[in-house]
Formats: sequence, C-alpha cells, structure tokens
Amino acid sequence: MSDFNLHSLEECLESHIPLNEYKEVKRILYGTTEDHVLNLPTAAISLAADYNFEIKAYGIPARKEEIRKPRKVRVGAIQNSIVLSTSAPIDKQREAIWEKVRIIIKAASAADVNIICMQEAWTMPFAFCTREKFPWCEFAEDAETGPTTKMLQELAKAYNMVIISSILERDTTHGDTIWNTSVVISNHGRYMGKHRKNHIPRVGDFNESTYYMEGNTGHPVFETEFGKIAVNICYGRHHPQNWMMFGLNGAEIVFNPSATVGALSEPLWGIEARNAAIANSYFTVAINRVGTEEFPNEYTSGDGQKAHRAFGPFYGSSYVAAPNGVRTPGLSRHRDGLLIAELDLNMCRQVKDFWNFPMTQRLPLYAESFQRASQLDFKPQIIREQ
Amino acid sequence: MSDFNLHSLEECLESHIPLNEYKEVKRILYGTTEDHVLNLPTAAISLAADYNFEIKAYGIPARKEEIRKPRKVRVGAIQNSIVLSTSAPIDKQREAIWEKVRIIIKAASAADVNIICMQEAWTMPFAFCTREKFPWCEFAEDAETGPTTKMLQELAKAYNMVIISSILERDTTHGDTIWNTSVVISNHGRYMGKHRKNHIPRVGDFNESTYYMEGNTGHPVFETEFGKIAVNICYGRHHPQNWMMFGLNGAEIVFNPSATVGALSEPLWGIEARNAAIANSYFTVAINRVGTEEFPNEYTSGDGQKAHRAFGPFYGSSYVAAPNGVRTPGLSRHRDGLLIAELDLNMCRQVKDFWNFPMTQRLPLYAESFQRASQLDFKPQIIREQ
Repeated sequence: MSDFNLHSLEECLESHIPLNEYKEVKRILYGTTEDHVLNLPTAAISLAADYNFEIKAYGIPARKEEIRKPRKVRVGAIQNSIVLSTSAPIDKQREAIWEKVRIIIKAASAADVNIICMQEAWTMPFAFCTREKFPWCEFAEDAETGPTTKMLQELAKAYNMVIISSILERDTTHGDTIWNTSVVISNHGRYMGKHRKNHIPRVGDFNESTYYMEGNTGHPVFETEFGKIAVNICYGRHHPQNWMMFGLNGAEIVFNPSATVGALSEPLWGIEARNAAIANSYFTVAINRVGTEEFPNEYTSGDGQKAHRAFGPFYGSSYVAAPNGVRTPGLSRHRDGLLIAELDLNMCRQVKDFWNFPMTQRLPLYAESFQRASQLDFKPQIIREQ
Repeated sequence: MSDFNLHSLEECLESHIPLNEYKEVKRILYGTTEDHVLNLPTAAISLAADYNFEIKAYGIPARKEEIRKPRKVRVGAIQNSIVLSTSAPIDKQREAIWEKVRIIIKAASAADVNIICMQEAWTMPFAFCTREKFPWCEFAEDAETGPTTKMLQELAKAYNMVIISSILERDTTHGDTIWNTSVVISNHGRYMGKHRKNHIPRVGDFNESTYYMEGNTGHPVFETEFGKIAVNICYGRHHPQNWMMFGLNGAEIVFNPSATVGALSEPLWGIEARNAAIANSYFTVAINRVGTEEFPNEYTSGDGQKAHRAFGPFYGSSYVAAPNGVRTPGLSRHRDGLLIAELDLNMCRQVKDFWNFPMTQRLPLYAESFQRASQLDFKPQIIREQ
C-alpha cells in the first residue's frame, strides 16, 4: 500500500464520518467542532491556482475582553518541494527555490499575512543524509549579509511582513563555522537577529551533527510589531524544556520550521508542537517540507538497507496549534502549500489565567532538580522494597 | 447534540473509514497500522460480562535484542464510576467502590496483570468541586496504615501484583495535613512508599488547592519486581518538566491517574501523556474516571452559570502510550473498564538509542536557564528591532 494514498488526514476524516459523529471526532481530535475557514482574496487564490500550490486559511477565535482590544495577527506557513535537480549548480538550485517561494509570499501578502515562516533550510535540499560536505556546504551563507537575507529584506519591506528564514549559516567571524539558523527580518526590512538550532539530531538520515553543532544563541524572543515570536528549529520540538524556555522568555507564537519524513516521525507530528502550545500557553506553527529529494551519489541510511539516492517523502502536514488546544487542519502531505491562520494573541493570557500553567509550574524546584540531575555523581530518587 | 454520542473515538474511526485509508489514518493517529489485540482468558471475560465492565488488552511489541531477554510486563488501568449516592455514609460509599474495583482487579489477575493502577482519588467521588470540607475530608486516610492500603496489601500479595492506589491522604504526623497521594504497594503486599501530587489545579470545578498543597515528595521512581515505575498525578500531566524529572530518575512506566471532564480537557487528553511518552522514552498510562457525580448541595462552577449539583461527565478514554509514539485505543468514554497492555520495557532503551533524546537534552543549559528565570529580577531574552 502506498504511503501516499492520503492527501490529508483531515479530508479523509471529513469525507467518511457522518456529520453528527464527525463533530465529536473533530472536537476530540482538533479541539473544535468545526474549522473557521477564512475567505481569501481572488489575487491569492489565483496565484495558488496558477502556480499549483495549496492555500488554506483559518481563524482561531479568542474571547472578547473588556479592556484590551483583540490582538489579531495573521501568520503564514510555507511548505514546498525543491525545484531543480540536486546536481544542478548550487546557485541555480537556490534561485529556483527563491522564485517558487517568492510567489507564495506574494500570495501571503495578498491575504494580509503579517508574519511568515518557511520550512527548515528552505533554500536547499535537505542533503545532510548524504554525509557529504561538498557541494552542500556551499549553500551556507552569512545570516545578516547573505544573499537570501538581502533578497527577503526587500520583500519584507515591500509587503510589510515579518519573515522568518531558516538557512544554513556560515559564520566567518568564528572559523567558518556552519550552523542551522533562523533569521528574523522585521516588517520594515531590517535584520532583527538570529536563532541557532538548539538540539541537533543523530537519527536515521538526519546526520546533522556531521554539519553543525548545538546552537549558542539561547532562546531569544523577537518583539515584532505583530507580536512576540520565537523559532524552535526542527528536532528541538522533541524537547519540551526547549519549548518551555521560549515561553519563559515571553513568546506568543513559536514557529517550528522542520524537515522530517513519514516513517520516522509522522505519528509524532500532530502531538509535539500541539503539546507545546498547550503546555506553554502560546501558539505554535509546525512546518514541514514535501516531496522526495534525489541525490547524485548513493548513500546508506544506517538501517541495514541497501544504498540508495532518494530521501523522503517529506510529509508536509503543516499546521497551527493554539494555547487552548485547538488546531487547524494540516496542509497536504505532498503538495506545496501556504497555510494562513488568523490568531488573536489575547488568547495566550486568557489561557494562562484559565489554566494557570505558569503559576503552577514550580520553576525553582525544577531548576534545582535539573541541576542535581546534571551532576556526574547524580543519584536518582529510587525507592526500593524494604 | 449529546456530548456522548460516541462510545469511543477509535470505534467510530474504524467503523466508517474504508480499510486501506483506515490503516494510514491509524498509523498517523495511533503510530501503528493495526492494534495487537491480546487473547484474554475466559475467567477475565466472564467477570467483565457479569459485572458490566469493558475489558480490552493490547500488546505493544518491541525489537528483539541479542543480549537482553525481552522484559515483558502487563500493566492494567482501571476506570470506573462511583457506586452509591454521595449522600450515603462515607464508609459505605468507600466500601461500595472497593467492592466494584476488587472485582476488576480480580479480572486483571486472571489476565496475568503485573502492575495495576486505579484512577485518581479512586475511593471517593471527586467532591472538590463543592469547596465543602465536610464530609469529604473524612475520606482521607493514612497512606501507610489506612484501611484502603491494608485492603489492597492483601490483594497485592494474593495476586502477586503491584498496585498503585491514589487516595486522599491524611498526614497526622504533620498537623492533620491533607494530601493528594499515590501509594505504591509491592507484589509481596508491602507498602513501598508514596508520591504526593506535585502540581495542583485551580481551574473550573477543580478547586483542589482548597484541599491540599503542592506535593513535597519529589519525583520518586519505585523499583518494583516488574520494572521502574512512577506516578504523575492528574494535573501534573500538563507540566512537561514534571514528566521529565520522573524520566531523569529512571522511570520506565509513568502512570497518570486522573479525574477530568470533557468540556475542560478532552482535546488535550490524547496529546499530553503521549507526548510525555515520546519526549522521555518511557511508557505512560493515562487513566480517567467515568460517569457523572451528583452532590447533595448545589455549588457554582465559577463560569457564570447557575448553581447545580452534577459534576461530569468524566470521559474515561484511558489509554497506554509507548516511547516510540504508538498508543493503544482508549477505553470507553462512559463505561467502567479495565485496559491491559503488554509492554516490553526493552523498548525504552531502544528508543533512547534510536532518537537520542536524553543524550541531546542539554540539561545543564536548562538547569541554568530555569534558575535565571526563577529570579525576581529575571530579564527575559528579548530582541527588539534596532
């Protein structure tokens, strides 16, 4: 049976389950009995039709307050396949992806998106499965002055849009070190800063520790005109303590640009970023790429199988989760797409007031417990039968 | 539309979705294309039929290793409604629940269960919604020498079964303090120790901070003959750092005895304990009560609605989640039930070796970050546009 019978989980559920039961299924699985579908302008819909990408938009309503006005923000998530062959010249590969994604950002602008985020390492194939350094390291560029950042600064300014761009970074100030980095560009086109991936996988085809180390930029929260945002890159979503520190620094939306494949992580995908939204009373935006990438040379996957050249399929399924547990449907599992969600950031404080998770988190207890557990002579708290 | 059209989410999905698509849905939502249903002995099935409770049993297979033998253990989770009216004498109410649950434990024994766990505060109605101290505090008993522990010690010994019993505890050594406590009894009938609920809710009808304080027993792991187990009581499941400390202390199975109602938490239920299993490379067992409980006096719920006497429905749906993301179907949303899962504890280390979550968790970073975030003059790491 093909892994890809299903275009999307949500469409499958909706098409087969009778309406009265579907509402209950939807409530239990998605936190809401029905999606709040937003109308999109023709310009955005036409671009999606002309350039063959999916576009979906949902609202996640919050309670109305007496004193604070709603703090509505539209976030966009872009998932896409690469464009050219991985054996094409590096700059051509990158430009072809730029070209594709620029169109999707244009559609996002037509739909009044305020903050947009692309997938992890969006300018390149996810070539780390090969363990080859050449030519892949040539994709790395300076976070602040590199060509991708420059290109996006123009768009950010033109569209009045905050852009989160996850790239392979080359840090020439520190010995040409390579990092997995997200750059945040303000809606005025200014470079705000960067975050380097905190947790690096060594699993399956994700041989990333061969290329870059654990990030040294802490857990920055970027105070943009549209809200306080942070970026938890890919494998960091498996680490609840990583999500938590972004929350402690005040994040209202945490983006999770990722690249992950079905056999490895698909059953975990709907769980982790959503759990983070709930546990930390903020919104999360989980973004994965789509498609299968073929590499010039054969490589092995450390799983006892024969050498091969294909990596994937990446299963897309990008989605947005809210602090109250509501989540949007996912984008397609195999098509390029733009997911738009209109959030009211007031919900973050509302959920904190309701559920009290920060108030009850007992942070000093865990600071001290983690400190003890970090010691070489740590003695776990074990109780044995007397 | 009634909240209770659905007997179980899983049965609904299975009955409506065509088989080829169902397998993909099941894989994405439950981590496995099909459940491994275990055969049960007639004695267990007959008890379930005679006493009107659901009984389900699943295996969660692990990889075969060369050096270690499989470490198979059968865990049981009991969900149940109360028996007598909440206005009946306290000791009669308790005895009636004992009587019901003893039968279910007997069925578990017939099915070779090694470790069993009842729901939170299993000997009583979940009366904390009322904010009344009398008569509910009379349910509290000594963890080590109280009547419930004594009663269960006999069963544990007779059935060679570890029993986790969550009760309202009265600590006469410390000023008659009341606690929400889980008692662990060994399969030899010995009192091993106790754990007091670490995080106490102040939300909706869960006015528990009126009755007891945050636990002072840390994150103990009980090294039983069948594996290293811990208990994360109810609201503690919303706190990833709480789950994490049980993992750092070496837990292989963490039970989450709970009491929670549909409108409040049902969309979160399938997420949190399962995320904990994934993030910490251990098994989790999430247990919720069923039924609606009527109290003698009206009470209000702090939600602007009229005073009322009913609390519920509690939605059951108890389930087991594995470190690799696989989960069992849930028990019914409204019937008493016994869920049995046969686990191979070797999976915990296998998943750690595969995913490397402990190796990549950067504990010292978070010990220090949490320490800073605990300070009164904490300055969050905020980056503003220059």
